[in-house]
Amino acid sequence: MELHDIHRPADLKGLNEKELEQLAGQLRERIIQVVSDNGGHLASNLGVVELTVALHLAFDSPTDKIVFDVGHQCYAHKILTGREGKMDGLRQFGGISGFPRQDESEHDAYGTGHASTSISAALGLARARDLKGEGGHVVAVVGDGALTGGLCYEALNDAGNRKTRLIVILNDNQMSIAPNVGALSEYLTYMRTSKAWIGIKNRLTAALPKIPLIGGFLFRFTRRVKDSVRNILIKDGFFNALGFRYLGPIDGHNILYLNKVLQRAKRLKEPVLIHVVTQKGKGYEFAEREPSLAHGVNPFYPETGRPKIHIPARSFGQAAGELLTRIGREDRRIVAITAAMTEATGLMPFQKAFPERLFDVGIAEGHAVTLAAGMASGGMKPFVALYDTFLQRAYDQVVVDICQQNLPSVFLIDRAAMGGADGPTHHGVFGTAFLRHVPNLTLLCPRSVEELEEMIVFAHRHPGPVFIRYPRLESEGMQKYPCRSFTPGKWERLLPGEGLCLVAMGPMVAEALAVRQMLSGKGIKAQVVNASSVKPLDVVFLQELTTRRKPYYIMEEQVLAGGLGSAVSEYCVQDGLHPPEYIFSLPDTFITQGSHQELLRHCGLDADSIFRRILSMRAEIA
Amino acid sequence: MELHDIHRPADLKGLNEKELEQLAGQLRERIIQVVSDNGGHLASNLGVVELTVALHLAFDSPTDKIVFDVGHQCYAHKILTGREGKMDGLRQFGGISGFPRQDESEHDAYGTGHASTSISAALGLARARDLKGEGGHVVAVVGDGALTGGLCYEALNDAGNRKTRLIVILNDNQMSIAPNVGALSEYLTYMRTSKAWIGIKNRLTAALPKIPLIGGFLFRFTRRVKDSVRNILIKDGFFNALGFRYLGPIDGHNILYLNKVLQRAKRLKEPVLIHVVTQKGKGYEFAEREPSLAHGVNPFYPETGRPKIHIPARSFGQAAGELLTRIGREDRRIVAITAAMTEATGLMPFQKAFPERLFDVGIAEGHAVTLAAGMASGGMKPFVALYDTFLQRAYDQVVVDICQQNLPSVFLIDRAAMGGADGPTHHGVFGTAFLRHVPNLTLLCPRSVEELEEMIVFAHRHPGPVFIRYPRLESEGMQKYPCRSFTPGKWERLLPGEGLCLVAMGPMVAEALAVRQMLSGKGIKAQVVNASSVKPLDVVFLQELTTRRKPYYIMEEQVLAGGLGSAVSEYCVQDGLHPPEYIFSLPDTFITQGSHQELLRHCGLDADSIFRRILSMRAEIA
Repeated sequence: MELHDIHRPADLKGLNEKELEQLAGQLRERIIQVVSDNGGHLASNLGVVELTVALHLAFDSPTDKIVFDVGHQCYAHKILTGREGKMDGLRQFGGISGFPRQDESEHDAYGTGHASTSISAALGLARARDLKGEGGHVVAVVGDGALTGGLCYEALNDAGNRKTRLIVILNDNQMSIAPNVGALSEYLTYMRTSKAWIGIKNRLTAALPKIPLIGGFLFRFTRRVKDSVRNILIKDGFFNALGFRYLGPIDGHNILYLNKVLQRAKRLKEPVLIHVVTQKGKGYEFAEREPSLAHGVNPFYPETGRPKIHIPARSFGQAAGELLTRIGREDRRIVAITAAMTEATGLMPFQKAFPERLFDVGIAEGHAVTLAAGMASGGMKPFVALYDTFLQRAYDQVVVDICQQNLPSVFLIDRAAMGGADGPTHHGVFGTAFLRHVPNLTLLCPRSVEELEEMIVFAHRHPGPVFIRYPRLESEGMQKYPCRSFTPGKWERLLPGEGLCLVAMGPMVAEALAVRQMLSGKGIKAQVVNASSVKPLDVVFLQELTTRRKPYYIMEEQVLAGGLGSAVSEYCVQDGLHPPEYIFSLPDTFITQGSHQELLRHCGLDADSIFRRILSMRAEIA
Repeated sequence: MELHDIHRPADLKGLNEKELEQLAGQLRERIIQVVSDNGGHLASNLGVVELTVALHLAFDSPTDKIVFDVGHQCYAHKILTGREGKMDGLRQFGGISGFPRQDESEHDAYGTGHASTSISAALGLARARDLKGEGGHVVAVVGDGALTGGLCYEALNDAGNRKTRLIVILNDNQMSIAPNVGALSEYLTYMRTSKAWIGIKNRLTAALPKIPLIGGFLFRFTRRVKDSVRNILIKDGFFNALGFRYLGPIDGHNILYLNKVLQRAKRLKEPVLIHVVTQKGKGYEFAEREPSLAHGVNPFYPETGRPKIHIPARSFGQAAGELLTRIGREDRRIVAITAAMTEATGLMPFQKAFPERLFDVGIAEGHAVTLAAGMASGGMKPFVALYDTFLQRAYDQVVVDICQQNLPSVFLIDRAAMGGADGPTHHGVFGTAFLRHVPNLTLLCPRSVEELEEMIVFAHRHPGPVFIRYPRLESEGMQKYPCRSFTPGKWERLLPGEGLCLVAMGPMVAEALAVRQMLSGKGIKAQVVNASSVKPLDVVFLQELTTRRKPYYIMEEQVLAGGLGSAVSEYCVQDGLHPPEYIFSLPDTFITQGSHQELLRHCGLDADSIFRRILSMRAEIA
């Protein structure tokens, strides 16, 4: 049996134990090969190979529905559901997604991307099933990391309340993106390390295949742990209080045993939570040793685990983290808050220098922001570091807790641009639109690392909330134009020109410089202005443009509605100024996956497209 | 001792039991009187009178910090912290707020308004205290309703993880805004009705004052419940798993006993949760009997509990709920989802007709939206009914779960205008800005009940997500203009005129009609257009305006940035059309409390201000 002979989950059903294990080995190899070529999520996918095989053995997808939380652990699922042949295009422009997508396969019961949604979504699918009087099972697979998100709790609470029939698999790999935080994580650790579990685990591997009915085992398990009052107490307490039947902990790398437990869960008529323990990175030594490094990875050499590409560009997050560490030495009011992304947002040096002032709250962006508001109210100066797309989770807390109270705080918003291979759920392209209208805040977007540093210096002293949005890496060639200073409400006149003006924000400044060069070939002298202060705008400059009757274009890698161009247009209406000729921005659609340059071209935002568009607009007028 | 002799919490310290009880009685009378005059939150405030007295007896505010979750239960706290004399202005324009506000008093340690933030905020204050090496206590007072919000769970999990010293008071009144839902609520009920608690409660009132040390009692309590394995198991499980020490349940109407338990909690060096049982509406029969009616109330006659004002206007929410019930009979795919506001959003008839298709998920907006996405993925047609300001909580779920998957679903967004007496945390004025830029959605705003009904008929058949935003009540006089039909992307030419055009959205249509009348007195004939389709815009009409060179004004009761005027301005830039003369919208600031008319005037959005502004702008041009 080879991987490409598996066209649908039903093809698994006749396989014996040895064949299943072989299949798991092949899945692992294929995953390592694909991720080493295309980049992607390695350790999380390697950790759930056996679990995925067991799920497709025990359930009948698509009649039964499997919802993967976050979704970055769906590679084995994709291979087993008829997409083996498409895996080479995984995460590539035009290829299949690295996450489940309903429009990609009937086996992707629900599309995910952000954490902690699976139980809510699965509950919805289960209730739809019940209202329509249909049969079948609905399974949510959720990691212990995602379980730190309050959305999971809200869903567990609701499911337990109405006793909706639903199976939740807690995939406990003791890790989310970074080592897990939160009291609940300690509690899960207790359960994993309890004597009952260790004894069972040892006994299990040898004895299990001989036990004909899984029920027998679980009843014995229950009897055993009754000896340990503490164990029952802790074990049953949390999930039982939320109305769930708890089964576990279960070894997540034993396919047949997993299958038996899943078969038992299928017979239960109530919400069930199965606590499965897996090892992230299982079966690949580099990923096992460094699961945090192997979360989302770039292409690498499979023999060594070393990355294939050296990235020469400077990282905004790293620079922010280093500067924060420097000013944190002087100002002890500074604290850093993040949501399971200390490393990814560049906060490692700060954590190393001031462990007691770094707060990683788990995958809990809402709490991160309200915690910051509380600390600011208590006289501290919080710096909150999050990805732009995940800050969407805390929009209400930004409005009500931070801005309505006008609290001194700084938001370091990373990945605030099109995000590449992760696709539509991960692009940071709504940030300008969902932040700009909130009163009291200052909204900034640097073009270079130096400018970011200047902004942080400003934000540190500013008595209100400051939001600084930047992509992962500085654009190429930006070092040639050092940033001298930064003042909010004042745009940098980067390069002069008389014919027209290109007003660009953040990563689009690099495109504007390229457009300028192309235009100069046509004899048009274009001024390039860096509109790094989105709120407040540089109204003096806008007035000048009108006075000088200079046509100008806005360039932003953000959605049109509510963005920088929108801000300028509103201002022009209210003050009777001359509006921009055109706003180069993203179309009103969710953007697919691809490299940054592919996506810019796809959206008509690369220098060449903009250049040609400007020429044709000028031709129309003339 | 009279209420007006209490100027600060310290004035309570010397009072004996009888005096404290008298004080509680006076607080109750004052609260009933103020709320009967001004409207406000009655039952929740009456329920926490003794708890508030006990808190100010046990703690030293403002050194110790008390954070009230949601905050609508802070009236006794305001009276006891030097604001007795200002209570007559409670919730009035220019008066004190119905919620805690840091800018109002040093005793309001943190401003609240939306549910479930108190533990996060208190944790922030506690960590600030510890980092600064200061002493003092931080207390969060959170209701069982607010505890259904995932933010509480995220904060408990974080607090328990780092073992931050913090006291959480769970004010368990078995109610949030509506009777509580969620499995956890059942669990709390179990604890309240357990034999141990009932026995203790009976014994308590008589025996307690004789016990010199509260510690003694609690230890005995612990010994007793040990007899009941189930009790320990359930009781300790949930909060212990989250790292909290649990004390309770405690009678929330016994001041001295509460004080003793609080004194004990002050001595503990770990996160503590005290489970206090209170009766909502305590001491006022109308509120005791109908606590749900007495949540947020209009002015009423204290002798009867009957409302003083008869509201003749038609309610959008009620009409939506009735229509949904009618079409729900025909189409069994229709389900309704809300977050603890079945009654407030008009869903009672639907609940009565189809209890199995109405899902009240608790104060958990994020889950409500993802649940809807799951149900839509399972073939149902979900209608989600929420307040505009609370939908802010589910922004990410709207983007990623609903719109990115383009799922057929309808959002009935109530209170989508300035909200009156509840003030800045409750106005529904950001909805256009935080929704309009999301791809795939249709965004509508009816001027009348009939138009809303037409929109619901459209949305029911539409294969993608539709968001319909409306205020609580229809504007006066709107019935005179019956709505004939509704088509997305087509604006209603309500009244003709040649001189200029008023393009108004939702409640501003009524103001536009009034402005038209005023202008006609000056010989100007103004067209009035109802821009009820915000996305898509009526681009044909905008092109006509340019062709006819007719000056036009946008009128919206929303923030300028990202609103309707912003949408029109963007469109005009991109298509080279003539922009609006001016956008009448809300200023870029958080709006205070007051009546709707007071707030319109305050923001320059009443008909008179707009009329005068238009005249002066025309004079300038001429």
